[in-house]
Amino acid sequence: MGTGVNMRDRLREIVQSRPWEWTIISIIVLNAVTLGLETSPTITGAIGGLLSAVDHAVIAIFVVEIALRIFVFRLSFFRRPWSLFDFFVVAVALVPATGALSVLRALRVLRVLRLVSAVPSLQRVIGGLIAALPGLGSIVLLMSLVFYIFSVMATNLYGETFPEWFGSLGASAYTLFQIMTLESWSMGIVRPVMEAHPLAWIFFLPFILATAFTVLNLFIGIIVSAMQEEHDQIAEADRQAIHSETGIVLEEVRALRRELAELRRSVEAEAQG
Amino acid sequence: MGTGVNMRDRLREIVQSRPWEWTIISIIVLNAVTLGLETSPTITGAIGGLLSAVDHAVIAIFVVEIALRIFVFRLSFFRRPWSLFDFFVVAVALVPATGALSVLRALRVLRVLRLVSAVPSLQRVIGGLIAALPGLGSIVLLMSLVFYIFSVMATNLYGETFPEWFGSLGASAYTLFQIMTLESWSMGIVRPVMEAHPLAWIFFLPFILATAFTVLNLFIGIIVSAMQEEHDQIAEADRQAIHSETGIVLEEVRALRRELAELRRSVEAEAQG
Amino acid sequence: MGTGVNMRDRLREIVQSRPWEWTIISIIVLNAVTLGLETSPTITGAIGGLLSAVDHAVIAIFVVEIALRIFVFRLSFFRRPWSLFDFFVVAVALVPATGALSVLRALRVLRVLRLVSAVPSLQRVIGGLIAALPGLGSIVLLMSLVFYIFSVMATNLYGETFPEWFGSLGASAYTLFQIMTLESWSMGIVRPVMEAHPLAWIFFLPFILATAFTVLNLFIGIIVSAMQEEHDQIAEADRQAIHSETGIVLEEVRALRRELAELRRSVEAEAQG
Amino acid sequence: MGTGVNMRDRLREIVQSRPWEWTIISIIVLNAVTLGLETSPTITGAIGGLLSAVDHAVIAIFVVEIALRIFVFRLSFFRRPWSLFDFFVVAVALVPATGALSVLRALRVLRVLRLVSAVPSLQRVIGGLIAALPGLGSIVLLMSLVFYIFSVMATNLYGETFPEWFGSLGASAYTLFQIMTLESWSMGIVRPVMEAHPLAWIFFLPFILATAFTVLNLFIGIIVSAMQEEHDQIAEADRQAIHSETGIVLEEVRALRRELAELRRSVEAEAQG
Repeated sequence: MGTGVNMRDRLREIVQSRPWEWTIISIIVLNAVTLGLETSPTITGAIGGLLSAVDHAVIAIFVVEIALRIFVFRLSFFRRPWSLFDFFVVAVALVPATGALSVLRALRVLRVLRLVSAVPSLQRVIGGLIAALPGLGSIVLLMSLVFYIFSVMATNLYGETFPEWFGSLGASAYTLFQIMTLESWSMGIVRPVMEAHPLAWIFFLPFILATAFTVLNLFIGIIVSAMQEEHDQIAEADRQAIHSETGIVLEEVRALRRELAELRRSVEAEAQG
Repeated sequence: MGTGVNMRDRLREIVQSRPWEWTIISIIVLNAVTLGLETSPTITGAIGGLLSAVDHAVIAIFVVEIALRIFVFRLSFFRRPWSLFDFFVVAVALVPATGALSVLRALRVLRVLRLVSAVPSLQRVIGGLIAALPGLGSIVLLMSLVFYIFSVMATNLYGETFPEWFGSLGASAYTLFQIMTLESWSMGIVRPVMEAHPLAWIFFLPFILATAFTVLNLFIGIIVSAMQEEHDQIAEADRQAIHSETGIVLEEVRALRRELAELRRSVEAEAQG
Repeated sequence: MGTGVNMRDRLREIVQSRPWEWTIISIIVLNAVTLGLETSPTITGAIGGLLSAVDHAVIAIFVVEIALRIFVFRLSFFRRPWSLFDFFVVAVALVPATGALSVLRALRVLRVLRLVSAVPSLQRVIGGLIAALPGLGSIVLLMSLVFYIFSVMATNLYGETFPEWFGSLGASAYTLFQIMTLESWSMGIVRPVMEAHPLAWIFFLPFILATAFTVLNLFIGIIVSAMQEEHDQIAEADRQAIHSETGIVLEEVRALRRELAELRRSVEAEAQG
Repeated sequence: MGTGVNMRDRLREIVQSRPWEWTIISIIVLNAVTLGLETSPTITGAIGGLLSAVDHAVIAIFVVEIALRIFVFRLSFFRRPWSLFDFFVVAVALVPATGALSVLRALRVLRVLRLVSAVPSLQRVIGGLIAALPGLGSIVLLMSLVFYIFSVMATNLYGETFPEWFGSLGASAYTLFQIMTLESWSMGIVRPVMEAHPLAWIFFLPFILATAFTVLNLFIGIIVSAMQEEHDQIAEADRQAIHSETGIVLEEVRALRRELAELRRSVEAEAQG
């Protein structure tokens, strides 16, 4: 049992060592390159066997690495979100990508995302992005509501005349998303619709203004919260500095009072003496 | 009469209770789903009767709920903007949607907006959006002025050669709005216009720059006012903290002066004694 | 002579009075409406004579008003930018709009811009926009440089194959402005160009990134300067508050020193006495 | 040797003098104008010889100027980035622009960029842009990763059906860049793709949202860091002001303590005396 623990400790040291980290990062980058090369039929024709062999080797290494980390960290492996992320990315690679699942072959390149969990500065960026999400909950809910209501209305109003764009709830939502991004909203969608329904602008212009205003507020919400966080840290430091300076003055003044009290006592003692 | 008041009080408690709120939210969500399902001809064909029955039941519940709230809150019901909002949303559902008013059927889905008045976090977001509006008054007025002036000019200059885009004041305003959103402004509108009027870019480029600059200022106005509000709260807290610390020092110094005055009196008394 | 001065003073009072201001604003709005109505051939057919009469009356009133203000304010009229603005807007209306100058008819609607000089809140918004300009000088110069360099290069590289888009320096600048606004830049311009010059993306993508980055910095420059101004005012107020509080403490401490010095003198006097 | 040093010193003075700087700026502007005129076949036909002569003269002047500066500043010339910039811009002009290198003729206009190194305010703007870059490293790396992964997937999924857009890794990256700028993303690319692959929106909408969110964060990162820098300077000044005021109070209080101590000594001396 002691040997097992010893072995775990030694493995933990290896798994957390710099060279190990760099080896994994190198393998991820190598795999990214081979997956890129595989997109070219010419290259696959020439060295397809080699690329395939590298791919299998990389998967084997990843499986061994994940197994080692599970052995070393036990349950705490499954508590770290980034470990779970690595786990699923590698698991996708093991699903046989044949028949109906052949689209999964395209997902193999998601393995390159392991670079995010392997490079700390990328981890921080993604962490920052994710940390910004909860504050956006209400506004995302509001946006979904706006989309749902306008999709139902668009399907009812224009579904029959323009089935390609507004034939179903999903088609309407997609078209409204396109309109929200302002892509061909007028020449491509609204002008043709207005030829059949001349008052359609009463529906589409408020939609554009409403979503633009909501996105703007989403945006401002993120900026303000990012700056407030920044400001809080600075203001705290300022407050500390002022606090400590005023504290010194206060101490001096209190020492002065004590000394004055002593002086008074000695004056009074003398008067009585 | 006492019973009436008692009944009002009891009803008020019920109407303001958590379970009641959640029941209403559930009914709104249920109605949102049935209104969504109704957009599909297949589903309407299969269970159209059921969907229609649910719709009628939901309206009946809403009418009863609004009636209860009016009975409970009396005139103050009509003073809360969100209550008025609920009132009109339900009222729209009661207008017979036939003949010329058949478009009102499409407005039934606005009922789902009751979710905004029922969920506090959504109420706050909308409240924030609306609170941002008054500060934008001047800039919106300016934008309207720019649009009006350019629409009149565009109609005069290009109305005859391009009646579809600039044939009337409304058509020009719509086309200029499209140009402001930058959608197909060049390939779709300005290049064709320049083939007939080679100097048309003297009209359109200033318009794009002017509206872009105005929108930018609108945007900055909102950000700055949002951040100033944030800052005011923080600065106020800081000021309070510094104020209270300096206040402690001031009190100590004043106590010191009083003690010194007493000492002086006793020294002088002794000198005279 | 004294009567002349008296008359000037009385006229000055009239010209600066509230009712006079509101009369002028009403006339501007009335003129805006008639100029809008004139864009419709149907309305011009029916009441064209009336509209034309109103237009002449309005110009007459404006000329009289400007003349009055010049008589009242003399040279200082020409020193106020808004007065000059009013002067030129009215002057444009007096140029005979015939023959080669018939395009000036379209400029008559600029008269409606007098609303900006007549409504103080609009004056402030425009003033704010103009105040933001000087800080942008360098970045606008840089942008012009980027545009000039890329226009010359585009004309040299693609002028022969795509004369419509890059045939002259002006055509290239216009097309690059279109690309900067991202309108149809790829499907409309760059993809066709890449069919003739496969490496054209090496020219266009850096242009897009460079202008996007410059516009972004322009934007950030405006935001930061707007917020700094805001911040300066707040910080100044804070500093004043802290300053005055610390000042009170300082005064108390100095009073204390004076009192202590007096005490010391009386103690020493007693010791000597 | 002494004469050589003297000559270097005198040349250094000349090279750094105001008139010299303005002469160089004038020559750059003159060259910018001639390079612009050369784009017009009519003007080249009329005064092509003159333009060409001016061009050669300008290059000769630039070569002499760079040579002088190298002679004056020796190795430190190559340590200033702006000097290196000038050096390469002039070097490009000396490469014979014939045959395969004829495209280099188009690069001659880059010489106008020397205006940036010659005008201090432009130098500052560019310096500011470049200073903003390092903080963006992680987010640019993340963006590249997203682009690479989506490009590989797009090539695998849609390369066969839409070879023009997704036929190779490069084509996919270009098309995804176009989609990121939202140019014709739906009508031009995604709708046609969805006709062959109805679920393609599952691939493209997440891509749009992911890149929009990343660009937004890039943007916010730049704003926040710009404002923090601004804020730091202001806060530092504030802190200094408060610090110095509290420092005065502290000095007064300490002087008070010293005086009190003296008083106490004299009182005690008297008591003992």
